[in-house]
Amino acid sequence: MAQGYFYCGKKEDTATFNYFFRTNPFKGGFTVFAGLQDLLKMISEFTFNKSDIQYLEKQGFRKEFLEYLAGFRLSGDILSAREGEIMFPNEPVLQVEGNVIECQLIESVLLNILNFESLIATKAFRIKLVANGKIFSDFGLRRAQGLGSLHASRAAFIGGASSTSNVMAGKIFGIPVSGTQAHSWIQSFDSELEAFRAYAQAHPDNSILLVDTYDTLRSGLPNAITVAHELEQKGKRLLAIRLDSGDLAYLSKKARKMLDDAGLQHVKIVASNQLNEHVIKSLLKDQNAAIDAFGVGTELITGKNDAALDGVYKLSGINEQPKMKFSENIEKVTLPCKKQVYRCYDNHGMFYRDAILLANENPEKAETICDAFHPERKTIISELKKEPLLHTVIKNGEIISETYSLEDIHKYLLTRASLLPDEHKRFISPHIYKVGISEKLLETRNALVKSLE
Amino acid sequence: MAQGYFYCGKKEDTATFNYFFRTNPFKGGFTVFAGLQDLLKMISEFTFNKSDIQYLEKQGFRKEFLEYLAGFRLSGDILSAREGEIMFPNEPVLQVEGNVIECQLIESVLLNILNFESLIATKAFRIKLVANGKIFSDFGLRRAQGLGSLHASRAAFIGGASSTSNVMAGKIFGIPVSGTQAHSWIQSFDSELEAFRAYAQAHPDNSILLVDTYDTLRSGLPNAITVAHELEQKGKRLLAIRLDSGDLAYLSKKARKMLDDAGLQHVKIVASNQLNEHVIKSLLKDQNAAIDAFGVGTELITGKNDAALDGVYKLSGINEQPKMKFSENIEKVTLPCKKQVYRCYDNHGMFYRDAILLANENPEKAETICDAFHPERKTIISELKKEPLLHTVIKNGEIISETYSLEDIHKYLLTRASLLPDEHKRFISPHIYKVGISEKLLETRNALVKSLE
Repeated sequence: MAQGYFYCGKKEDTATFNYFFRTNPFKGGFTVFAGLQDLLKMISEFTFNKSDIQYLEKQGFRKEFLEYLAGFRLSGDILSAREGEIMFPNEPVLQVEGNVIECQLIESVLLNILNFESLIATKAFRIKLVANGKIFSDFGLRRAQGLGSLHASRAAFIGGASSTSNVMAGKIFGIPVSGTQAHSWIQSFDSELEAFRAYAQAHPDNSILLVDTYDTLRSGLPNAITVAHELEQKGKRLLAIRLDSGDLAYLSKKARKMLDDAGLQHVKIVASNQLNEHVIKSLLKDQNAAIDAFGVGTELITGKNDAALDGVYKLSGINEQPKMKFSENIEKVTLPCKKQVYRCYDNHGMFYRDAILLANENPEKAETICDAFHPERKTIISELKKEPLLHTVIKNGEIISETYSLEDIHKYLLTRASLLPDEHKRFISPHIYKVGISEKLLETRNALVKSLE
Repeated sequence: MAQGYFYCGKKEDTATFNYFFRTNPFKGGFTVFAGLQDLLKMISEFTFNKSDIQYLEKQGFRKEFLEYLAGFRLSGDILSAREGEIMFPNEPVLQVEGNVIECQLIESVLLNILNFESLIATKAFRIKLVANGKIFSDFGLRRAQGLGSLHASRAAFIGGASSTSNVMAGKIFGIPVSGTQAHSWIQSFDSELEAFRAYAQAHPDNSILLVDTYDTLRSGLPNAITVAHELEQKGKRLLAIRLDSGDLAYLSKKARKMLDDAGLQHVKIVASNQLNEHVIKSLLKDQNAAIDAFGVGTELITGKNDAALDGVYKLSGINEQPKMKFSENIEKVTLPCKKQVYRCYDNHGMFYRDAILLANENPEKAETICDAFHPERKTIISELKKEPLLHTVIKNGEIISETYSLEDIHKYLLTRASLLPDEHKRFISPHIYKVGISEKLLETRNALVKSLE
């Protein structure tokens, strides 16, 4: 397509593209936007080197176009919601404005990064919502989707994971790393007790003993208690035991009692084994499991069951002309023009509606918004406090946005999520957060529809 | 754990680890093993550079151990099934034998690579099984799990995808690349007809026109037919049209009729939009859709709905002592010792049973095998043709296996799959392929269980 634009007289055209998604992942009521800083970094490094050009030449691309690619860099603007923002279906999360070829060339990688990190950050935050103040760690590397594991660990931390078992991700992104022993450690010694002792000696300050290799309650716990007492005699404390199979609710309560009876109230209980937000919620809220921390692997790091966020990147204007896509599926019809999204607050200062306006519209003059597909459903927004969500992050190809630490992004998420009413956060049939479009945007879209009929 | 082994007097211990999975993905009857060559490459490049060591030092790792890591390279052996082999739950797919620290250090990345590529190759092959000779292309980059997209495209090709839209994967792995126009191309012109003309001019030999931007049958098809006729006048042919929304069965049949009526029997019909093996099967087998090729995105590239293969890496011996893991969950009990897997053939030369024997057992002397968890269920294998599946691929740290092209791996898969009876290939309640263990392995396990009681 890029070569097509280059040769058909459109290489100087300017375009506007919007990134948005159509449904919240996990049948939930919100999406955590993540991946922005990785995207900006990727765009700043997006070039075609000699070997790329040679490869493309072999694929049949033409000389002048390849010369253009060899000098490629993005020269346009990008507006975006802040990383860690709570976003909703069908509203622009990010807007790219610039040369049509440039806009087109970054499409796939933009979608790849933002869809994936938003998926995982949302999953992690759903776990955080039910973890009841307990910490959880990303244990997912061994089941992650290849190298996707790296950015998944980053997104999981933004969403609320306290650490990762992926040491490479820890190194690259500065995420705290944490590990624990595997069954192979226990098995490699002649006895479980000997294995626990050796581990406690190697890690006297932060041992977590895995107690289910042979028999959790009859072997693992008694041996862990023995080692905990031995540590105490050296002035050290066993950090925790870990349960990795069986009924975690039952075993954790039994284990807590055994530890307490042995005077080991300070020894924590960590649980792992195919956990997700639903299992953790059930363990903590329905069954009062005595679990202090969770290791969450596969489902967190792959965003199961969805495995993908359905974000798309759609043309909404070319050379200042509004553009939209029709479709057999009504929900796939897009919104034309450069736009801005305003978050409208209710009287209690909570998120109430999002309003999509034309970029050049004065939000103070927008009296009502309506549903994009059912325009008879209106909301009056004139009296509401409004806050623009899209900010310029790249101007003329240069990154102008501040760089935030992952901790800052996570804290921003927490602040924003605290303003989202609880009914949007529940897992089953969450209340749908309303996103409307302004009268002017509706008129522009209707006129465009008419002109195309 | 590695540091633990280093300081507790076990740094010279030798270990045997097995990689295996517990269930076939997608509730299917088989798994395509993929990722081996990527694993071998990773292992040959597995070192700790200065910055890695500095990072680990900051994490609190100790000096002597870090000096050991700085000189790390795998010195042991790896036996593996061939990449592209059809494998089944609970049998060793790969066996690592060597120093316990080395074996442990490669665990996470080994699991990451093999679990993911096997998942995607299996998904792709399931699509191939129902595609009825039609080709399908990997369109998944924009919804893939970050950088996981690269190896996913490789695995998809092994499983049967004919090409990828991921140009980077094409460059790295030599996979044929293919693209098509997006809706944005159509929208960026004043009319659909103009957009089609410009594209056909830019790609006179291989244009695929996307016909659903405005109205598939009333606008897209008539315009595509016009452009196809214009191409004919220049001695060129339109390659295909693409349907990307609506009812693909209905639209494809209507489109086929319109194209045929216009004398364009040679113009193919490509379909995309949330496809998977079940949708493609329904389109082709139940509805006789007039579709010649498919673009498959999200579900292929993320291995939806599973998103992960449950492969594990378990210790089965240390210093020649057999080792196994017990569990509250009976299906999590593992098999001790170094092993070999023999594929047993029936009288028609088809796959019949897999037999897990001790590595040093003579397969010609193994008379019966039994189910690992129900030893009363026996099969006589003495008369059957047997073939060992695990071959040495790394000897003393050096790769000694042949390097195969992706085409060769795919062809090997086709040959092997042709020997797997159809009842294991169906999607709904596939017949379970039986994997048994030898009497000697059973005895060894029973003795070990007894010694631990």
